[in-house]
Formats: sequence, C-alpha cells, structure tokens
Amino acid sequence: MGLRDKAVVTCAVSGAVANKEQCPGIPYTPQEYAEEVRRARDAGASMVHIHARTPDGTPTVDPGHYAAITRAVLERTPDIIVNYSTGWVGLPMADRVGHITGLRPEVGALNMGSMNYAKYSPKRKGFVFGFVFENSFDDIIFLLRRMQEAGVKPECECFDVGHVESVEPLVDLGVLAPPIQFSLIHGVLGGIQATARNLAHMASVVPDGSTWGVIAVSREQWTMVGAAAALGGNVRVGFEDNFYLPSGEMATSNGELVEAAAQIVRLQGREVAEPDEARAILSLPAEPDRGAVTGEG
Amino acid sequence: MGLRDKAVVTCAVSGAVANKEQCPGIPYTPQEYAEEVRRARDAGASMVHIHARTPDGTPTVDPGHYAAITRAVLERTPDIIVNYSTGWVGLPMADRVGHITGLRPEVGALNMGSMNYAKYSPKRKGFVFGFVFENSFDDIIFLLRRMQEAGVKPECECFDVGHVESVEPLVDLGVLAPPIQFSLIHGVLGGIQATARNLAHMASVVPDGSTWGVIAVSREQWTMVGAAAALGGNVRVGFEDNFYLPSGEMATSNGELVEAAAQIVRLQGREVAEPDEARAILSLPAEPDRGAVTGEG
Amino acid sequence: MGLRDKAVVTCAVSGAVANKEQCPGIPYTPQEYAEEVRRARDAGASMVHIHARTPDGTPTVDPGHYAAITRAVLERTPDIIVNYSTGWVGLPMADRVGHITGLRPEVGALNMGSMNYAKYSPKRKGFVFGFVFENSFDDIIFLLRRMQEAGVKPECECFDVGHVESVEPLVDLGVLAPPIQFSLIHGVLGGIQATARNLAHMASVVPDGSTWGVIAVSREQWTMVGAAAALGGNVRVGFEDNFYLPSGEMATSNGELVEAAAQIVRLQGREVAEPDEARAILSLPAEPDRGAVTGEG
Amino acid sequence: MGLRDKAVVTCAVSGAVANKEQCPGIPYTPQEYAEEVRRARDAGASMVHIHARTPDGTPTVDPGHYAAITRAVLERTPDIIVNYSTGWVGLPMADRVGHITGLRPEVGALNMGSMNYAKYSPKRKGFVFGFVFENSFDDIIFLLRRMQEAGVKPECECFDVGHVESVEPLVDLGVLAPPIQFSLIHGVLGGIQATARNLAHMASVVPDGSTWGVIAVSREQWTMVGAAAALGGNVRVGFEDNFYLPSGEMATSNGELVEAAAQIVRLQGREVAEPDEARAILSLPAEPDRGAVTGEG
Repeated sequence: MGLRDKAVVTCAVSGAVANKEQCPGIPYTPQEYAEEVRRARDAGASMVHIHARTPDGTPTVDPGHYAAITRAVLERTPDIIVNYSTGWVGLPMADRVGHITGLRPEVGALNMGSMNYAKYSPKRKGFVFGFVFENSFDDIIFLLRRMQEAGVKPECECFDVGHVESVEPLVDLGVLAPPIQFSLIHGVLGGIQATARNLAHMASVVPDGSTWGVIAVSREQWTMVGAAAALGGNVRVGFEDNFYLPSGEMATSNGELVEAAAQIVRLQGREVAEPDEARAILSLPAEPDRGAVTGEG
Repeated sequence: MGLRDKAVVTCAVSGAVANKEQCPGIPYTPQEYAEEVRRARDAGASMVHIHARTPDGTPTVDPGHYAAITRAVLERTPDIIVNYSTGWVGLPMADRVGHITGLRPEVGALNMGSMNYAKYSPKRKGFVFGFVFENSFDDIIFLLRRMQEAGVKPECECFDVGHVESVEPLVDLGVLAPPIQFSLIHGVLGGIQATARNLAHMASVVPDGSTWGVIAVSREQWTMVGAAAALGGNVRVGFEDNFYLPSGEMATSNGELVEAAAQIVRLQGREVAEPDEARAILSLPAEPDRGAVTGEG
Repeated sequence: MGLRDKAVVTCAVSGAVANKEQCPGIPYTPQEYAEEVRRARDAGASMVHIHARTPDGTPTVDPGHYAAITRAVLERTPDIIVNYSTGWVGLPMADRVGHITGLRPEVGALNMGSMNYAKYSPKRKGFVFGFVFENSFDDIIFLLRRMQEAGVKPECECFDVGHVESVEPLVDLGVLAPPIQFSLIHGVLGGIQATARNLAHMASVVPDGSTWGVIAVSREQWTMVGAAAALGGNVRVGFEDNFYLPSGEMATSNGELVEAAAQIVRLQGREVAEPDEARAILSLPAEPDRGAVTGEG
Repeated sequence: MGLRDKAVVTCAVSGAVANKEQCPGIPYTPQEYAEEVRRARDAGASMVHIHARTPDGTPTVDPGHYAAITRAVLERTPDIIVNYSTGWVGLPMADRVGHITGLRPEVGALNMGSMNYAKYSPKRKGFVFGFVFENSFDDIIFLLRRMQEAGVKPECECFDVGHVESVEPLVDLGVLAPPIQFSLIHGVLGGIQATARNLAHMASVVPDGSTWGVIAVSREQWTMVGAAAALGGNVRVGFEDNFYLPSGEMATSNGELVEAAAQIVRLQGREVAEPDEARAILSLPAEPDRGAVTGEG
C-alpha cells in the first residue's frame, strides 16, 4: 500500500467559538489539550490543529499560551504534527501571526479569501450569526510572508472554489510554493455547502501535485469525510468543527471523533497515515524542528 | 430521519462465476443460501440478489432450483426482498427469464447494454478473460415485457453512462415505467471504471425521481460503497462482486461483507433501510406476493 | 423550437469603471446610451443592464440620471427589458437602491456575497487593484426587501458556488421567491475563475426551475458564452465586462459584442430570445409597467 | 497564441451509410471527394476522415478505391492530414485494415469497444435500426498491431466512458503508446448521449498529455462543437455525422459544415489549426510519408 492510499487525519481539538457548557470534552488547560491530543493520536490522528485558550477557556492568540499548550502536547505525544490557526476576526494581522513566527509550528493555517460567514436556523426563521469575514489579499500576503520567514508550511483554508484559485497570483509572487496544502471547507453559509459533488469539483481545481483535505462543519461532516476518503483526500475532525458522532450522540472526546474518521478511511480500504507518512505526504521536513517551542535545539 | 437518509443494502450472495475453492463462503445448497441470506439480513441487508446453483455448485437458470433456494431463504428470512438475476452468456433469452415469469420475485435484474466484458492482469501482461457481452435492445425489450407481465420490478444494471440513457426509448415504448431502479456497475473492463468521480457523473444522468445503487467488482468496491453513501445512493455487496473485506482479508460469510457496508453507511450518518423501508424507497408493493414460489396465496 | 432553445442575451452597455479613453464606445449621455441599446437590440439583445453616468461620464446612482437614460433608451427601443445595477462600493445601502425603488425597472441586479475582488497582472508582478467587496446578508436582505416592495425582479449575481447556495435562507425568509434569476459571474480574482468546468458545476447547484446566465470578464468571456450556450444558459456581454471581440480587436459598439454572442448562440442551433420570449423565460410580467420612469400609466 | 488555443477541425466527408438521395453533397467519385476535401480545407479543416466508396456510391474497403480517392484528394489539397476509417460491421478484421496497411495514411480510426448501436424514433414509436456493434479486445489489438507495423497513428473512437478507460491494458501491452488521440463520440443510442456535461466528464478521464476531439451525430452536433471548443478540445464535422447546418438547413457541401465549426472555434477566441500545427498537436510526424499512396518516395 503506497502513500496514495494513506489518509492524513487531522484533529482540531478545541476551536475558539464553543465552550465546555456546550460540549464538555473541549479542552481548556494545557493538560486537557495534551490529553485530548493523546486520545486523538491513539485513534489515528497524525496532525493537531490548535486554537489556544487560557486555562479558563478564553480563546487567545497569546504566544505564551500557545507555547504552554504545545509543550504539554509534545510531552505526551512527541511525534504529532503541530498546526496553528491564524483565523481571528477583529484583531490586527500582526497579532494573528505572533505565535506562528515565535513558535514555528510545522504548519500554519490561514484563510484564503473574504466571504459572508453566517449560520441560519430554519426553526427560528433567523440568522444565528452572520458577519463579513475579511481576509484581503494584502492580509494573506502578510501572513504568507511571515510563515515563509519562519519556515512554517502554510495550510490554505478555502471556503469556496475561487479561494483555491486565488493561490495563482501568490505562487507567481513567490509567497507560496507548490506543492500546496489545501483545506477545502464546506458547510459555512456564505461559502460552499457540504455535498459530495461540491467536494469533487472543488478538489478538481486543486493544482496537480498539491494535496487537499476536507473540513466540514456540523453533522454533515461525516458525509464529507466519506466523500473525501473516496476521492483520495485527507480529512479533519474534532470539536472545532462538530461535536457529534455519526450516530447523533455528542462525543465525549476528540478521540471518539478521530476513531470514527479512521474507521471511515479504513472501511474504504485505505489506511490512516502515521506522522512520518503524513510528513512525506504533505512535503514537511521528515524531522520537525521543535526548538522554538521547547527552548532546546 | 426520513427515507432519504436510509440506504438499501443488497447482498449478492453467490454469483455464477466463482466457486468454493476460491471462496469457501459461497453457498451452493438451498440450506447454505438460506444461512447466508440470514447472516446478510442480520447485518443489515434488506434485499438478496440470487443466481441459483444446483446443490453441487453448478450455476443454473432452472426454475426448480430457484424455487428450492427461495423457499429455504424465505423460511429463515421471511421479510427479505427477493431479486433474481437474468444475466447469462450463451443461453436463449426465453431460458434466461423462466424463473422470473414462473416464480415472480419482487425484483428482476437485467443488463441494459452490450459491451466488452474483460479482465486484464498487469502481472501476467494478459487478459484473464474477455468476451463481447451482448444485450441487444430486442433482448432487453423481451425481458422487460416478461417482467411487466409477471408484475416483477426491473432493476436496470448499467455498466456505463449510455446504458442509463438507453432507458429513454424503453420508457417511450411503455416497457419500462418510472420510477426506475438503477444499478450502476463499476470496474468491469470495457465498462466504466471504479472511481468516485465516475459514480458522481453516472448518478447525475439518472432521471429525477428514480433510484440508484452502486455495484463494483473487486476490492475497489469499498471505495465505491463509500462514494455511493456520500452521494445518497444505495449499495450492493456480496460474494458475487468481491470476496475481500476492506482490510484485505477474505470474508468468511456474506454477513461480514454486509456488516462492513452497513458500517460505512452508518458512519456517514445514514441508516440502513429495513425491508419495509426499502420497499417504499424502491416503489415496490408494501406486501410482497410470494404465492408463485411458496404455492400458497 | 421551444423556449428551452432560446437564449436571453443581455447587454451591459457601460459599467462604472472604464471610460471613453480606454474604450471610445462606452456611452456617457442619455443619447449615447439610447444609441448603444438600439444597436444591442438590433443585434439580438433583449435586456439591457444599466449603470448610470452623468453626461460627462461620471458614474452615478442618482435616480434623475437613471430616469433620463431610461427614457432615452425606451424612446428608441420600447420593448427592451430594463435592468439596473445596485453594485457600488462605499455607498450607504439606501443610496444604492433609490433608482430601483423610484423607477421600478423590470429587473434589479444585486451581489449575493462578500469576496476579495481583485485583478493581478503577471507582467507587472503585482495587483492592479484589490479590495474586500462587502455584501453582507443584512445588506442583501435590505435590497431584496426594497425590490420586493417595488415589484422589481431580483437578478442574483453570484461570484462563486456558495453565493448561489446563499439563496436558501433568503427563500426561507420570504425575501426571495423562486423561480430565481441567477447571473453566474466568472473570472474576477477572489471569485470563481472562467472555465467551462466551473460553469458546469456552478450551474448544477442552481435550484430546479430557476434560470441562469453567464457573465465573465475580459476576453475569456467568449469561452464562457460558448460554454453557457452549450449548457442551456443565457448570456451577457457588453462594455461593462469586456471591450474586445473574439478576434482580439476592440469593439466599436455594444452592438458588435452582442452580434458575436448572438452568432455563438445561433451556431449551436439555438436562437436568441425576443423580449417577449425573454420575459416568459425569466418569469417577468408579459407587459412591463413603465409608469414610474415615463410618468405615464 | 499557443498551440493550446488552436483547435484541429476534422471533416468526415462521406461516411458509409447515407447516399446522395438523402444528401446530394455526399461525394462518390474520387473527383467529388477531392472537391469536397478542398472545400473543407478552404473552410478550415486540417484533417479529412475517409470512408471510401466506389464511383457509384457503394461503400467499400477496397484499397484500390481508397488509393484513387486519396490521390485525387492530395492532388488538390497536398497538405491535408489523411485519416482512414476501419469501422465496418460484418467483415473479417483483415479486410477492415488492408487499406491502412497498404496505403499507410497518417491516421487510422478504430472503435474502442462493443455496444448497442441504435436509433429510435419517438414519432414512429420504434427503432429505426439497432444492432450489437462488436469490437472485442482481440479485434482492437489486431487493428492496433497492424497500425503499429504500418507506422499509422491510431485515433481511438470512444462511444462511452469505459471505452476511453479501455486503453489502459492496451498501453500496458505496448500496442498503443501515449500521447493517444481520442475521438469522443456522443449521441448514438446505446452509447453516451450528446450533452455538454457528458463531454466534460468524458474528457476528464482522457489521460494527461493525450488529446481529444468531439464527434456527435445529428443536429446536436453543434452544441457539442460549442462545448468542445469551450473545453479545449478538437472538433469533427462533415456529412458522415450530420447533414444540417446550425440553422436547420441541409448543407450543400462539407465546406459549409466546416465553415460553421470554424466560426464556433473563432468566436470563442480560439483559432483553427493549420495542417502543420495539427500535426504538432496530434504528435504526428511533421512531414507525412505519402509514398505508399502516391507510389513515390
């Protein structure tokens, strides 16, 4: 079985929106992050996507909190690929990237376009929330340059077809270099919706040689994980995207969510990638440099 | 959860090509058929697709053997939907349909086009087998008329896009009536190959209001079951199509194969249809008339 | 030949970005608008999309200028369908819709989402322009309500797949009613790019029963008009979108651009819709109420 | 403008089914072939696809007639690419290829699969014709080997998705070498039907680096030429496929049909390839060896 048949499973363990009242399994403290990542790794994840929180659960971009969480995570799960978010509404760009440049994770995720970002409830006949999520080309270029300087691989988060196609000028400018790692996000109102056909098309515009994985919000995630597995892509699950198992029950840990994703992958005759395989698939250095976060090396 | 979220799982328990030496789980005797169908039903199948065999394993179209097998099956699994094959190379058409007209199963499958039907081995650098599988429009119309007279719902087995589109004149002639039940078969060399993109396209030409399920041969079947689950279709597994579990191990029973298919369906947040739900989905009468096979009613 | 085989050709005669120095054929004065629309109509257009200008060429949303232009247009071309833009960056929403509510054109176009709106030049290795084009759900709902009150049919301008899918909550809220008229815009950097495959996919998410046409910027427009004609859609050309004929020469009038579009439509065996046919296709009233603009009726 | 923007227009001047009573422009004598090819070449064709006829119009595979026709054609149109058919129902394979091996045209077309080949008339409520068109893998391999020995480039005529995918074992066996030239044929009942979406999908399974053109029968041809132009493919027209211009009038010569195809190509901003450009696009030798047919060289 070659690398083509391996799927990288990423776990987005906490997100920055929900809290323990809504979903008790969401980690707040470094220790909780470390336990959740361990569970995710045991269940088949090879990469963790981190939004930091202070120990009381407040989302933060503070590099100190990112460092504490990452150290705790790596102590229990030394081989995991570490991936930080830069998504944040209403903060200056410089603040959205300090933890990336300071701690140099292997991967940094960034949003590749602007969009309406909303949720509608047919039951309430109204919007649950809705705002313009601004990620201008200037901001994107700023983030990509900082990642390039820090030696951090960008993960290009795309909420629609045009976001994927927006990489072309960035490659031409030299701020982004193929092979590119894409996350194709489905199901946010304003962006592309969660259907297998949408994923098949969106994946078809990913440049040859680059890699892609699927992200989807709410329970439709499971359809999209199934579609991505069939289309040869990677997958992401975790409390950031969805609390519920395919059965409809709320998961008690990220490990349960990863376990379901791993089963989907395996039942289609593929395997989940171990971290070293995931690094090869994603064109990451075989040996991560953890010096900036551990203070060693 | 509405019917749209239910997937009909069909089990093709024996086929007519392989034998117990290749795969010990293939049933020969009525009793073995009955046990295999019971296992398939327990694991989530609501329809059984039958190619009959004599008790020594020889494939046959003899209505007597079909009757014996069906009676044994229904004794152990009274609620299963019974579906007979009409596929056979080198027999007069009348002989390919006698068990259908005589025993009136709920569903009769037929091939919707001609094609090269082959298997190639890159290892051996040669064809394992290869022939022209002839199913002319005249033959198709003959079969459809017999089924219509017998009150048997046709299952239109399509090996490529044009086979699906070939129903148009048949509907115009009145020998086939919507909603139509399609099986979209992937992976036979000469027909459409087994990729999620091919399935997405082939399903897109199925007329609105009709239903479709996927069939695929060899281990690629599992990718196609995953893709069909994501695209909203039904699925078929069983020793006729593939001996191997997603792990690569040979299955010991059809039940194991159905169990894997059911898990794929459930892990995407759908459920497997019970026989009464499957009858509703496929527009079959709610109460099957078993009189012709049981001699009662 | 039924209505299905007729394509509505719309002409966007001026736009609000370019000027006569770049393209001498762009109309400024009401008289020039009237002449350009007459040429477009003679060449096969049945709808005109208007951005108003003051007679010196300055773009304006002033209802007075819209009225003067529209009167001049209708005097020379009484049967044309009149369609006003509401697209404008940096103006309060109320100002973007005054000409719509005051003059009640048959159709009002509005943007269905937010996005990066940019142009990149590989030659210059830099962006020609780039900004965040904000069209929040609140703004969209505001415009739709005004149009609904004024009895103006909205044309939903979509720059990516998710914009098309954003109509769902709007229909649920009752501010938009099927059948919906979609314009699928391709080739703006930040939105979906101009390929036939992208158009085929984007058109596939348009709800059944609704209608769609293609808009594309720059010379790729001609490929997209060809693709739309083949896929059964309507088309738009005109100086707002592109100055150049398929040959690469700059057009001297909107009529030349419409003539090329009409030829593409006819060479594929379809016909261009006359205004009354276009009204039927787009579910507009058969008899337009011009009272608000002409002061009669 | 690079070769990517050039479309090869092929003209299939006569076919073997229709006659002058149905369509007076169909050529019978070598002189008529020569005149028709000249008209096609003048209108933009760079390749001619020939089915030979005796001077009274009877279709024939006789190499003598092929030679006479080809000599007459090349005398008037020395630079045209010559492409012979091998399609014939009910003849031994050896007879279907004698003109290819004897006269060594630049290109030889062959059918890549078996299928039902039929035409249905909704008006008459009946089939106009219908038969099983047999082209087994053995026959395909036989033809490919003869072409390979004769130095003739095969054109793989595919009537459905699986026919395109059937090249894989043939490449593995070494009887077919990439880049492969595909003709994607649409609209024959039994094969894939003539829609832009079908073409987009079928073209997507053509291996990278290979080339494809579209063939379609009846008036739907014009939609398919438009779709192929938009998707970047080559196109074929001519009396073999369709007698009627986009307007619905019967063409009086192949030149008129080619003229319409060339207009479609040019109106999308592409150009028709000259014969030397077509040879480069199709990976044919820059200088054709005409020795076998002219008796020189």
